[in-house]
Order: sequence, then structure tokens, then C-alpha cells
Amino acid sequence: MAHSQEPPRTLAWVGKLPGHVRMIEQTFLPEHREIDVRSVQEMYDAIQRLAVRGAPAIGVAAGFGVVLGVQEHAGGSPAATIQAAREASAYLARSRPTAVNLFWALARMDAVTDRGETEGWGAATLVQRLWEEAQGIWEGDRQTCRAMGEIGADLIQDGMGLLTHCNAGALATAGMGTALAPMYVAHEQGKRFQVYADETRPLLQGSRITAWELQQAGIDVTVITDNMAAKVMQEGRVQAVFVGSDRIAANGDVCNKIGTYGVALAARHHDVPFYVVAPLSTVDGSLASGAAIPIEERAREEIACGFGKTTVPEGVPVYSPAFDVTPAALVTGIITEVGLISQPDRDSVLAALAKGRSSASAG
Amino acid sequence: MAHSQEPPRTLAWVGKLPGHVRMIEQTFLPEHREIDVRSVQEMYDAIQRLAVRGAPAIGVAAGFGVVLGVQEHAGGSPAATIQAAREASAYLARSRPTAVNLFWALARMDAVTDRGETEGWGAATLVQRLWEEAQGIWEGDRQTCRAMGEIGADLIQDGMGLLTHCNAGALATAGMGTALAPMYVAHEQGKRFQVYADETRPLLQGSRITAWELQQAGIDVTVITDNMAAKVMQEGRVQAVFVGSDRIAANGDVCNKIGTYGVALAARHHDVPFYVVAPLSTVDGSLASGAAIPIEERAREEIACGFGKTTVPEGVPVYSPAFDVTPAALVTGIITEVGLISQPDRDSVLAALAKGRSSASAG
Repeated sequence: MAHSQEPPRTLAWVGKLPGHVRMIEQTFLPEHREIDVRSVQEMYDAIQRLAVRGAPAIGVAAGFGVVLGVQEHAGGSPAATIQAAREASAYLARSRPTAVNLFWALARMDAVTDRGETEGWGAATLVQRLWEEAQGIWEGDRQTCRAMGEIGADLIQDGMGLLTHCNAGALATAGMGTALAPMYVAHEQGKRFQVYADETRPLLQGSRITAWELQQAGIDVTVITDNMAAKVMQEGRVQAVFVGSDRIAANGDVCNKIGTYGVALAARHHDVPFYVVAPLSTVDGSLASGAAIPIEERAREEIACGFGKTTVPEGVPVYSPAFDVTPAALVTGIITEVGLISQPDRDSVLAALAKGRSSASAG
Repeated sequence: MAHSQEPPRTLAWVGKLPGHVRMIEQTFLPEHREIDVRSVQEMYDAIQRLAVRGAPAIGVAAGFGVVLGVQEHAGGSPAATIQAAREASAYLARSRPTAVNLFWALARMDAVTDRGETEGWGAATLVQRLWEEAQGIWEGDRQTCRAMGEIGADLIQDGMGLLTHCNAGALATAGMGTALAPMYVAHEQGKRFQVYADETRPLLQGSRITAWELQQAGIDVTVITDNMAAKVMQEGRVQAVFVGSDRIAANGDVCNKIGTYGVALAARHHDVPFYVVAPLSTVDGSLASGAAIPIEERAREEIACGFGKTTVPEGVPVYSPAFDVTPAALVTGIITEVGLISQPDRDSVLAALAKGRSSASAG
């Protein structure tokens, strides 16, 4: 397989209006297949079964999903279009409970709908503006990824070993990823380093997705099982950890894929810096701490027979939280598009949010 | 399925001499199948492909394996019998490198062979004595498991949550197990508790084997993926960890299935006691520390396509150490057949070994 030396394109709008979304079907990876998504229902399903996953990518997908729900109304009544936009948004909001970017993106779409209602836009104008907003979320995500990548790349030196968990890469975003963005930029800069990818049970996003996209880009990657992370640190193979996040509380507590917390504990024990790479849209300033973040529980089958083979005896229960919360005290820094928040706490996180708002309004 | 309320029989000699070994084929679990093992070669294969696994059970299997290699010589020359015994022992010693019980059991068998040579036994006598020695290892393991279970059961109180990693249960021994023995005895005593079983990638001995045998015995067990252990501790669900060991150094460093070290780090962070349950035959007094323990590396396929489906992209390497070493400083106690070694160090470990030798010579 030819390596493109750049990350794959996770999802994008195809054509103008009316159009559809083309995305990599991530449940088939490492086999590379693309699917076309043409309705709100199909987008809901794609998000729920993790055909598209990763907090930023889910936000982008949700924005496009609203457009899929309204585009057929462009020639109709404004009221029907407004109703369709709100129904699509409310429906998509139920697809996955933990990723705050989903709600952030839908709130942006809802604001356009509200403005269209207030200002009495015609249906075609509303559909056009919703599409522009969704495209803006997509493009904004790409720029945000690049910005985080450039900040994070400064933390990577030649010869380092890096460890990541789950997939917070290009395939989790519309751009070059969050946790993997510093690696892509460092690779562009000619630095050589070795990435250890936790396979990330139960759905193996690390071995199936992170390994695949780093390999595509020509970056050295080695897969380990999740329970090897502490050992590779004990062996001195890891000089920094980079992970993404699905939601960050105002105090800097970080919710991310199950297993992140264990990695953070091992990193702290071995004095390995633990970086979270996440756009400000991941920060939920309304939550005082991580304890308030709702944690999705996944189905028994994902653990018990996830790969076509029964590996848990019938009748034995499983417990399957999809995420965990790493206390801010274990986080060396949060890399956002407006800079690195070192040793995050309530003051520094809220200051970064304010900086983000002021650069957004200045931009 | 009927629950017997007692642990399954992992392996045993069938009949008198000549006979064979019947064992549970553990690679098929949770499907229950038994196989008959009739030659040294078959025993070597059974150990290597993990049809029989767990440090104590491997020792028992190796003892029986030597008998399989000599029993056909019972009517022949003593010299041929001695040679067959030594060849069988040397061959079986190469089946798995980490479990010290393997070498301990083979050393016991070799000592019988040596004595037969020195004392000029006939072939039939030597074969009979080797069989008695192997049966003695089997029976001794059963008594040792029960003794550890009774000591460990005192540490289990009604209502506790317990966590274990891999399988150090009945199926890892000839008796009621090591790490699970305290649970079986506490269950006999009528205590109620909840066990969290790490599934234990890559070979899933936790979900396939530990969950199966605890379910058979009527003990409440819930399967989690390895990367959930830190979270269940964070949630306050775990009051004690019990794990087994494949080799313990003189200073109390504990080698066990990959992932044990990460569990120990999480346990320490959450002030959860971390107990290792292992017979004294697991202690390798010749090793000053765990750094000297050879760590077996397993094949790529176990991680990359262990579920019958490729989950790591072709061309991406894996790193697969089968074991890790938990420093003695993280071990709350080692439960042996002669008592609990609290906060193990060189003095207390060597004292336990001496106590074991004196009770063996007194017995």
C-alpha cells in the first residue's frame, strides 16, 4: 500500500447543495472502506455504531447531519425547514451522551436556525446558511487541529518514545487529529520518534485505527495491549503520553476513553509527562469537576463477543464504562488551539476559554 | 449448566501405570473440553500452546510428562529408562521459560532419576518412583492451594469487592488455585463478595477462564477489560486485589502475567491492598531481584488476530511481553502455604523459604 505521508480524510461534504457526506467506515478498519451518508437517520446510526467517532469528528458529523435533514426543504416553507432543523438537531443529540463537541456543534447549528427564524429568512437561505455553518465547523476543526499540532510538536524531540491511547487522530477529527496532531507536525519537521499505540479494548480503536493512520503517514508505530502500557514505561521506552478528550471540566478534569486514567497513573509513577490534546470546544465550563460528566455504558457484546468469538461465559455479567475521568492533578498539560495549559486548574482553564472567545470574536 | 459449587479438575493422571493424563483443554474455554495426553511430545505441546497453563499446573504437568516419557521402558533396561527420563525432563524444560515451578518440578523428577541411578534401581522401580513423585507433586499442589486459601480467606470480608488479573485459579493448579483459593474458601465459609475479573489480553484468561471457573463455583463475577481496573478502583468497588505469580525473586519482586504491574500501581494509588498468592515453589531464591527474571515474548498473532479477525494492520509491529514485574514495594503481602509475608523484602522472603524447608523435612 502506498503511504501518502499525510493523514487520511475522515469525512467531508461531497458537492454543493443538495449533497451528502462521505466518510471512512471506521468499524471496518484496518480494512479501508468509505460510505455515503444521505439522511439524518443514517448519520445518527453512523455516530451511534462508531462508523464515525472521536469527539471533534462527531461534532462535524452532527453539523452535516442537520444539513442532511433540511436540504430537501430548500424549496419549501421556512416553518417546515426550521422544524426539520430543530428535529434533526434534537435527534442527533441523542446519538452519544459523553462527547461535548456534539452538543457544541449542534448549538452552533441551532443558533443559525434561531437567527433564521428571528430574521425571517426564506427556506433556501436557511438551508444555505446551515450548510455554511457546518462547513465552517469542518474547516474550523481542520485549523484547530493544525494549531494544536504545532504547539504540541515543540514537546517532541528526536528519538523519543510516545504513547497514546484509543484514537484521537485524524480519524477522530476532520483534520490531522488532536493527540496525534503533534506527531504529524513533528513528522513533517523531520523528527524521528516511536509511537506505542494501546490497542484500546473493547473496540480496539488503537490497534485498528491509530496504528493504521500512523502507518499511512509513515510514522513508526508499535501496537501493545492496554495492560502493557505500565511495563513499556517501566522499561524507559516512553518519554511523553499524548491523549485526546471527550469532555474537560472547568477544573481541568479530563474525560476520555476508558483506560486513559490507568495510563495517567502509570505515567505519573514513572515521571512521564501526560498531555491532553483537545480543542476548547471540548471544555464544558458548566461542569465544576469531572464527577459531573455522564459516562456512557456500552453493550455487553462489545466485550463478550466483540470479534465474532464468545470470550465471556454465557450468564457472566460485564461492566463496560466507555470513558473514565483523569483528575487534573495527573495532567501535565492540556494543549488547545490557543496554547498549552500547564498543570491545569479552574483558573487556567477558564482563562484559556476566555482567550478562545476573544480570538474567535477578533477573527 | 449445573454449578458444582467447587472448582473444576484441571489435570490428573488416569489409572495406574501405564496410564495417561486427562486435562481440560483451556484454549477452548469457556467451551468445556477435555483431552488425553499420552506422550512427552503431546505434553510439551499442551504446555507451549497453553492448553494447560498457570505456574503450578505447568509444574504438575511437567512431572507427569516425565512419567509419560519413561513408562514404556518399565520392562526394559535401567540405562534406557534413566536416559529417557533425562531427555524428557530436558525437553519439557524448554516448553516455557518464565514459570519457575516448571523447573522446580523437573528438578524433583531429576532427583528421583539421579537416586535411581546411584542406587541401581531396576527400570520398573524407577518408573514407579517417578510416577509416585509426579503424583506427590500433584497432591502437594492440592494441599498447598488449600493452605493458601485458608490463610487468604481471613482477608476477605462480607460485602467486599475483589479484583483479579489473568487466571490464577483452579485451572492454573491441580487444586483450588492460588489467587482464587482465598475466594473459594471464603465462599465455603458463606461470605458474599463480588469479583471483578480483568479479561487479560491478549489471551483473555480472565474472561474465558477465571470467569468460567468462578461461575461454575457459584461465585459472583463480573468481567471488565484490563483498562477498566483503575476506574473500578476509583469508583470504590474494590477492597482487595488477589493475583498469582510465575516467579518471585528473593527480594519479593513479583513476576506475573502482563498487566499485573499496572493493576498494582492503580491499587497503590487507591490504597487498595495488593496480595500475591503463590506457593513457595514460585520463589526463586537465586534471583536477587525481579530484573533478573527472563520475560517470555509471545507471537504477534496473539495480539494481531487473536479473535479470528485481523485487528492490527499488516506491517505494523507489536510488542508482546507475556509477563511483567511488580516491585516488592507495591506488594501488600505474599500469601504462601506457610503464611502471609507482609510487605515482603529479602529477609522475610528468605525466612519463609526456610520455614517451608523445615516444615517439608518435618512432614
